[in-house]
Amino acid sequence: MDKPHYEPAIPDGTNGTATQAISADGHSELGKRYMIPARQGRAVRLQKGQRLRIINPRGNQVCDFFALVENTPFEFLSMEHCRTALGRIYVRSGDVLVTNRRRPLIEIVEDTSPGVHDILIACCDQPRYEQLGAKGYHDNCADNFRMSLSAIGAPIAHVPSPFNIWMNIPVSPEGDYAWEPPVSTPGDHIVLKAHQDCIAVMCACPQDMTPVNGKDAVPSELEFQVDAAP
Amino acid sequence: MDKPHYEPAIPDGTNGTATQAISADGHSELGKRYMIPARQGRAVRLQKGQRLRIINPRGNQVCDFFALVENTPFEFLSMEHCRTALGRIYVRSGDVLVTNRRRPLIEIVEDTSPGVHDILIACCDQPRYEQLGAKGYHDNCADNFRMSLSAIGAPIAHVPSPFNIWMNIPVSPEGDYAWEPPVSTPGDHIVLKAHQDCIAVMCACPQDMTPVNGKDAVPSELEFQVDAAP
Repeated sequence: MDKPHYEPAIPDGTNGTATQAISADGHSELGKRYMIPARQGRAVRLQKGQRLRIINPRGNQVCDFFALVENTPFEFLSMEHCRTALGRIYVRSGDVLVTNRRRPLIEIVEDTSPGVHDILIACCDQPRYEQLGAKGYHDNCADNFRMSLSAIGAPIAHVPSPFNIWMNIPVSPEGDYAWEPPVSTPGDHIVLKAHQDCIAVMCACPQDMTPVNGKDAVPSELEFQVDAAP
Repeated sequence: MDKPHYEPAIPDGTNGTATQAISADGHSELGKRYMIPARQGRAVRLQKGQRLRIINPRGNQVCDFFALVENTPFEFLSMEHCRTALGRIYVRSGDVLVTNRRRPLIEIVEDTSPGVHDILIACCDQPRYEQLGAKGYHDNCADNFRMSLSAIGAPIAHVPSPFNIWMNIPVSPEGDYAWEPPVSTPGDHIVLKAHQDCIAVMCACPQDMTPVNGKDAVPSELEFQVDAAP
């Protein structure tokens, strides 16, 4: 065979994501602030009604966000189904994002940034960085997704297309798009409400070969906390 | 549990797709014209270099197109990776479409239509029709994809987002889109070249509750044939 075999759960390399889960099973301490180091990912379990607050301390860091329905590894947040549900290629505060079975999973309940996020672009992965010219292993969101989940013992069936929070991909009227720095500012946060018990995965995108994490292309950390339903 | 369990390979209902494969293993007779009845799907195996010609006899029928790398059920044509590779949210003749491992899989080598196709929208499924108001089972492209593959004995790991040939989803500068009838005309065809051995799945979309298959919303048949590399 002239092609490599591919298994969705197996990363192409490794980093601290594999060993630095927030807890053995992904449960968090409510109200506690957790840090996601630059270039890494973290998984956290959410109960229906809980709020996940994601903070962008430096303002220029993209968060690749995924969510999987608890105990149903094949059902997850799906951007192509969200676009159908929304009738738009952009999201807004108040939107309810759905799964690949078209069931509500994540609601954007608060967003202090100007609201520029992406729901069109695949998460970065080792093949992407090799195509951009990287030599050897490069941290990437697909592997951080895989490692975040395996670190809490959760199965992986597929790497879904992410909700790219703060990622600025303006689409021209002709359908071309650009890779632009975020328009968010230091301390911006977004609050997501879980409509079902689920596992959320957040990756501090390690992209340093395009300006999606700022014109200087220096990835930085993110923070998050889970709060009880108000 | 208040939620249904979901398995990617299990259809929500059935139709002739489940029993009317073109052959037991999905191989075709080169140059032979096959018909896909309205509201159904068919799978066909392609060898690297072969051409798949898909014909739109009435001109107003959308083809939900999928392709899976042979012997690698987790690697398939992926619209979110195509958008990254192309730098656009629309395709053009000459484009090479890639997998979720960013490897070339399908090239658009000929297109007699005006070239209006969609790479943004999830295939229709039973939950979509229920949300549109359908009572009981409604034929759908997700199930036709599942049944097309099971009918030739091929495994299903995920229902990918399709390349919606002839589907007309114009996106406004603000990011809203519309569901419009195709601009293709009777007898239009598209020719796709396989860059790897793969399984192609074509579904004659059964959408009759929006105008994507024409303003009269009457789904019709498609035809296809496989030709040797020239």
